[in-house]
Amino acid sequence: MIGGYVFAWIDKISFDENGLIPAIAQDYKTGKVLMLAWMNKESLMETINKQKAVYFSRSRSKLWMKGESSGHFQALHELRLDCDNDTILLKVKQEEGVACHTGRESCFFQILTDGKWIVDEAIIKTPSQMYNLD
Amino acid sequence: MIGGYVFAWIDKISFDENGLIPAIAQDYKTGKVLMLAWMNKESLMETINKQKAVYFSRSRSKLWMKGESSGHFQALHELRLDCDNDTILLKVKQEEGVACHTGRESCFFQILTDGKWIVDEAIIKTPSQMYNLD
Repeated sequence: MIGGYVFAWIDKISFDENGLIPAIAQDYKTGKVLMLAWMNKESLMETINKQKAVYFSRSRSKLWMKGESSGHFQALHELRLDCDNDTILLKVKQEEGVACHTGRESCFFQILTDGKWIVDEAIIKTPSQMYNLD
Repeated sequence: MIGGYVFAWIDKISFDENGLIPAIAQDYKTGKVLMLAWMNKESLMETINKQKAVYFSRSRSKLWMKGESSGHFQALHELRLDCDNDTILLKVKQEEGVACHTGRESCFFQILTDGKWIVDEAIIKTPSQMYNLD
């Protein structure tokens, strides 16, 4: 709710008992699934207003614009809702092609192979390159 | 846990306070995101054993093999885990090209356009065709 006014499109969305909805971010060009994070109403409104993905951090209990510390923003191309109105799909242009805090393109870099999780994605940027830790 | 033995790869996974993890299903060829559902340990083991997606239905509180009533099974091609070990990505071959119970390819058929949710995916099969309701 912003200024007492609830937008009709947001009313359609089923947030869970914590006021959250899972949001999948997908590269708008390649179709690669980059990450899953969570949104509340406010972060969803901010995503629309800024045209950049803004999530709700469950560990820090606050809004979090993707890229605010790394510069790896996600420009919004499409916002989709599923048939049960309880999952969001964002198609985004991923700044620098790095969505994961480990410096990889996608967070889904572990693949189950012969009963083990194998890492099959290269690190594009090191943490020190991403967060100016030097 | 099966027969008292916990597989190491499953131990790495962070299930939530309800013993669940969100699982994204993506078409292994086109990259289209088909749906998001939930898994518990047992459904994940079943997915591996059967090589077909088996979810946990939160509304019915039981395992649910995708396609058991519609025939629209999801053959497993890849199983991936994200950096936080709390989201699964399945790459699947979607039987009949219909993942959604509305008869559409994907559940994400609503796109936000000028402040409204617009349906932009065609129905491939009607519910009567899918569930033999005739």
